[in-house]
Amino acid sequence: MSYNTFGQMFRMTTWGESHGPAIGCIVDGCPPGLSFRLDRDVQPFMDRRRPGQSRHTTQRREPDLVRVLSGTLEAADGTHTTTGTPIALQIDNVDQRSKDYSNIAQAFRPGHADFTYWKKYGIRDHRGGGRSSARETASRVAAGALARLVIGALAPDLRIRAALIQMGARRIPDALWGGAWTTVDIDKNDFFCPDPITAGHWATDLDAIRKDGSSVGAVVEVVAEHVPAGLGAPLYGKLDADLAAAMMSINAVKAVEIGDGMAVAALRGEDNADEIRMSPTGEPLFLSNHAGGILGGISSGQPVICRFAVKPTSSIRTPRRSIDEAGNETDVSTKGRHDPCVGIRAVPVGEAMMALVLADHLLRHRGQIGS
Amino acid sequence: MSYNTFGQMFRMTTWGESHGPAIGCIVDGCPPGLSFRLDRDVQPFMDRRRPGQSRHTTQRREPDLVRVLSGTLEAADGTHTTTGTPIALQIDNVDQRSKDYSNIAQAFRPGHADFTYWKKYGIRDHRGGGRSSARETASRVAAGALARLVIGALAPDLRIRAALIQMGARRIPDALWGGAWTTVDIDKNDFFCPDPITAGHWATDLDAIRKDGSSVGAVVEVVAEHVPAGLGAPLYGKLDADLAAAMMSINAVKAVEIGDGMAVAALRGEDNADEIRMSPTGEPLFLSNHAGGILGGISSGQPVICRFAVKPTSSIRTPRRSIDEAGNETDVSTKGRHDPCVGIRAVPVGEAMMALVLADHLLRHRGQIGS
Amino acid sequence: MSYNTFGQMFRMTTWGESHGPAIGCIVDGCPPGLSFRLDRDVQPFMDRRRPGQSRHTTQRREPDLVRVLSGTLEAADGTHTTTGTPIALQIDNVDQRSKDYSNIAQAFRPGHADFTYWKKYGIRDHRGGGRSSARETASRVAAGALARLVIGALAPDLRIRAALIQMGARRIPDALWGGAWTTVDIDKNDFFCPDPITAGHWATDLDAIRKDGSSVGAVVEVVAEHVPAGLGAPLYGKLDADLAAAMMSINAVKAVEIGDGMAVAALRGEDNADEIRMSPTGEPLFLSNHAGGILGGISSGQPVICRFAVKPTSSIRTPRRSIDEAGNETDVSTKGRHDPCVGIRAVPVGEAMMALVLADHLLRHRGQIGS
Amino acid sequence: MSYNTFGQMFRMTTWGESHGPAIGCIVDGCPPGLSFRLDRDVQPFMDRRRPGQSRHTTQRREPDLVRVLSGTLEAADGTHTTTGTPIALQIDNVDQRSKDYSNIAQAFRPGHADFTYWKKYGIRDHRGGGRSSARETASRVAAGALARLVIGALAPDLRIRAALIQMGARRIPDALWGGAWTTVDIDKNDFFCPDPITAGHWATDLDAIRKDGSSVGAVVEVVAEHVPAGLGAPLYGKLDADLAAAMMSINAVKAVEIGDGMAVAALRGEDNADEIRMSPTGEPLFLSNHAGGILGGISSGQPVICRFAVKPTSSIRTPRRSIDEAGNETDVSTKGRHDPCVGIRAVPVGEAMMALVLADHLLRHRGQIGS
Repeated sequence: MSYNTFGQMFRMTTWGESHGPAIGCIVDGCPPGLSFRLDRDVQPFMDRRRPGQSRHTTQRREPDLVRVLSGTLEAADGTHTTTGTPIALQIDNVDQRSKDYSNIAQAFRPGHADFTYWKKYGIRDHRGGGRSSARETASRVAAGALARLVIGALAPDLRIRAALIQMGARRIPDALWGGAWTTVDIDKNDFFCPDPITAGHWATDLDAIRKDGSSVGAVVEVVAEHVPAGLGAPLYGKLDADLAAAMMSINAVKAVEIGDGMAVAALRGEDNADEIRMSPTGEPLFLSNHAGGILGGISSGQPVICRFAVKPTSSIRTPRRSIDEAGNETDVSTKGRHDPCVGIRAVPVGEAMMALVLADHLLRHRGQIGS
Repeated sequence: MSYNTFGQMFRMTTWGESHGPAIGCIVDGCPPGLSFRLDRDVQPFMDRRRPGQSRHTTQRREPDLVRVLSGTLEAADGTHTTTGTPIALQIDNVDQRSKDYSNIAQAFRPGHADFTYWKKYGIRDHRGGGRSSARETASRVAAGALARLVIGALAPDLRIRAALIQMGARRIPDALWGGAWTTVDIDKNDFFCPDPITAGHWATDLDAIRKDGSSVGAVVEVVAEHVPAGLGAPLYGKLDADLAAAMMSINAVKAVEIGDGMAVAALRGEDNADEIRMSPTGEPLFLSNHAGGILGGISSGQPVICRFAVKPTSSIRTPRRSIDEAGNETDVSTKGRHDPCVGIRAVPVGEAMMALVLADHLLRHRGQIGS
Repeated sequence: MSYNTFGQMFRMTTWGESHGPAIGCIVDGCPPGLSFRLDRDVQPFMDRRRPGQSRHTTQRREPDLVRVLSGTLEAADGTHTTTGTPIALQIDNVDQRSKDYSNIAQAFRPGHADFTYWKKYGIRDHRGGGRSSARETASRVAAGALARLVIGALAPDLRIRAALIQMGARRIPDALWGGAWTTVDIDKNDFFCPDPITAGHWATDLDAIRKDGSSVGAVVEVVAEHVPAGLGAPLYGKLDADLAAAMMSINAVKAVEIGDGMAVAALRGEDNADEIRMSPTGEPLFLSNHAGGILGGISSGQPVICRFAVKPTSSIRTPRRSIDEAGNETDVSTKGRHDPCVGIRAVPVGEAMMALVLADHLLRHRGQIGS
Repeated sequence: MSYNTFGQMFRMTTWGESHGPAIGCIVDGCPPGLSFRLDRDVQPFMDRRRPGQSRHTTQRREPDLVRVLSGTLEAADGTHTTTGTPIALQIDNVDQRSKDYSNIAQAFRPGHADFTYWKKYGIRDHRGGGRSSARETASRVAAGALARLVIGALAPDLRIRAALIQMGARRIPDALWGGAWTTVDIDKNDFFCPDPITAGHWATDLDAIRKDGSSVGAVVEVVAEHVPAGLGAPLYGKLDADLAAAMMSINAVKAVEIGDGMAVAALRGEDNADEIRMSPTGEPLFLSNHAGGILGGISSGQPVICRFAVKPTSSIRTPRRSIDEAGNETDVSTKGRHDPCVGIRAVPVGEAMMALVLADHLLRHRGQIGS
């Protein structure tokens, strides 16, 4: 039964609420003998996701320091080596302000999981969204950092990159869409945007949106290059199906596309079929990548291209009509600290989920097929 | 490990190749005491999916008669009652023409799983696509018919409907998009199109495409109404994540949307948040459904709306550049019988996958929470 | 959820009732490229288990011919090669006599699953025990034959052997207990007994028991030699825990022992600890094997030794006090054809379960650790 | 894949090493709305298992205080209410003495998992046995306390009791064997022994064994009364198979018996079959319980009776012949603090595993069948 566990051979089980004492995860099934340092191999990914780093994200200040409680041997210099046993990662919550949420203790934010958690469980932790908070994604990023170790060992050329390619109605230039962007500028702006000009517009856009007490949606693109051909287990362990589930599980995601995505509907067969030639070095060479690197649920060796759409944050200052637990109609306006565009911080989360899926499939493939 | 098994409490394991003697599935975890007749409760769904029913689908003629080999007690009148033990369903293959595929025995169809199965497994059944053939979806429809029995028992008001809402560049009218169509006309045309006028255009379009030896993509929309609030197990058993995996696992699907889907990226918070009032009868009443009936991975009680894009069939007569297993460059033109728009027959498959996901989640919810 | 599926990477899902048209299983996760012939690699195992081969087993006559419906490419000479897709195996039931069971259609055989199936499901197939019949073990033996192919590929020196070492109160000589017997005589008597003298006594014993309309219990021992060290995934995928579940899942089994089993309770630490020296060839050499080849849930490289006790068949001619579905007290005497000692035919089933567990763990180990 | 997760609907994932900073577990799938207090509902079970409470167990002093980090709402009075989200439980390690283990940093204790962990993973945490230490069972007891909440809600009459019934060669009186003992005296001696006279002998026995630097094996019996009929999912989710795996997963366990266990081998059918009459109140009344409350893998409503044998602790002071990682022959004598009879503290662990299995099956049954 999958409740809070993701993955099959490389497994992450996450726990924790937004305003509890801590959050964390267990990473199980990790191969032994992998070495890492928190400061070099984990914390940089945490830092990209953590809040409070620009005016464009929530002002909650969380250092997001990861502690390792089990599953490694730690050398005097801080190098951890995995032992093959479950790795417990823990991140303390230090900047909760639960009283910000007192006005929604009984009322449901429209568009938020408040209502459905209450309907399902009959009880909910309203503080900061409780379990439904995007705070949980910090655990994903931490586990994703360990997944990268597996990838580094089994597919050392594999590279994962992600970017924000649309915010509101404004996209990066068409020529860059579909993975045709580079990482050069991504960390030079507050948006993980590969195009500096678009990033400049977004800054202006988002200042206005924030000032309005509103929020906005976005599109994230995740690309994995040098993925070995052969990953994916048809029919119900397809690589694209697992990616779809992985990305759809991220907070606020409402759509997932592989390769050309929704646009394939308008294509004809000859346009969609990625033709193949032999490269000068004797390798299959695809002449296009409409498929996004996956055919029949199995990686083809081309870049795996995955996009997902993130809805606007539902916690907004603008009052919205809603009800409370007692069935009274009320207006809800959220006062807590929130991301005006949760899509921004979803960029490193998308990378982490890609890493988790690929690490899992590398091990699964090795199990069934061997090297 | 998920290879060919779908679902957690209501589980379907499928087997079989396009040109083998038969295909089938095991449905496990079905509650006992559910009654059905093949002719009334299963075969009609099979008939909607089976090939050879119009000039717009493949001319392979398969009766797709389902046999029940275990898991039920059968009365003299043909009524089966489930016993709680695994239900084996079997469908014979009767109209294979394997020699049609001799020219692609060694070559890879561009855009097809030929290449990736070979890369993964080092061996492949090229006849009719082997395991990667959409023929497998007949098993899904059969299992989906049993899933409907579970739904009928646990959520009798729940209704599932699906339609083709886009073929090539041509969509149904905007006003009908997003589930706002009815089923009145769906079975009156060859496309499961809710709009007769669009269906007429598609007939013309597809005649031309077929004559060209080409194929075309499509969009399918699946709607489930009267889904009880509370289905879905956050965070890694979210209802939308499971739907995304379910739909992405269907052959040729490249994108899945819930509710507004990719369009949420362009929305602002106040537009996206589905406001809530109380109905005259004292029930929560959502004023819109951008969320597609799912918030935080849990059903809200609103209609669950899911769309997916199907790429054009990669088996086309138009020659495409490719390679063969030996690494020789070659041109490939597929002569077998194929659907020019595989999206059409994906409509009942999408319904079946929705039924399988919902039946599974109804049981999972009952397990954890009770009624 | 595990209903009728066994294993994690090498997975068997079985289906079918004793008196249905057929039984069978899906073997999923099998590595590709393994070759086998039914007559050479599968049927001999089936023949060892199948009924009606001596006066000491049930007189039901089932040829137990296995058909392969998917998952392989079959050459003209009957050689199958696995393709990595699910392998459907099917065995027809040909010698049912359902009317033999009419007197227990409503009554429960004491000691039989009749009562509990009815309590759980509210419905049951009483004919031949339905799903609870040991007839299902034919599927296990068929799947076990495929598991041996995996073992042959990954651990070619590994050998599995099993024997009946106790029937009723009579055991093989103490000196042979604990795996110290050879296979020389096992197939020369009707009991899979490694000791001809004991086998002779059992023949006399069982003739009397059968004449009395009674039945008797037994102990089976399964030994796997040359199991690579390192198999088993602590803490909840321990090799011995998986073996315990595997053997306990066989019909009528009430106890499972590893190594010294229950007798360890009486040992002191210095007696129990298997001391280690280095062999002349530089390998670790254990001086004893109280542990039965498993320490901390992981194989040590020593022979894996597993025993299980099989209770007497509960279907006996001697009348026993019972009740029926309506709550009436009644006497039950079973007239169908039954094994007077179901432990005999459990010998090849125990071998099959050992093969399934080891094949699964070989793949699991390869997945996490590599070769 | 099952590495460190136990259970299907009620799931426990444990982590931590004997000498790490802490150990703990995630309990996932717990129904919402269950209330508990740590001091009343959890800590008493921890106290029964924790070390250092008599001269007969290890002198390591661990308070074993459980902290709840997620998954509940805590009221001002310390009452926790489950929310349906994952419950993280954590227990600090406070009394490690890792240097006691320096002499076995490279050498393998005979009979211990030292050797196999090293063979499997190529790396191991030798301090206190690392992951293979019985210290992990503290997490099981904590999770088991939550499992009892589920049982309390779904089967309020169900009672679990366990006892030590054999230590070394000395057993409780035959008349008490097989669950026929009461709990009156169990907590009045240091052994969880239901018979005061036997307990007195054991005290003398164990003093001598401890003085010798040796250890001894034991048998634990766990009984669950008022288990509802119908629990267990044949064929590979049988209640007895799950119990066998559960108990075999406990450190040092080498055998598991249900009901008459190994003794069934010597029975005849008429002796083994538990006859049934109707009780005066109209309920089925079994006249004996050779089956230990389970028929065909499903609970019958009779007491579920399970026994397991625990081998002598392999960490003993008496020198034993062994080797080290470099392949040198050496003698090993363990100096750390150890239980001379690890079976004693396995009693509350056995109870916990029984609770975990039953809670899981209650939810699984409710999922498939309803109440």
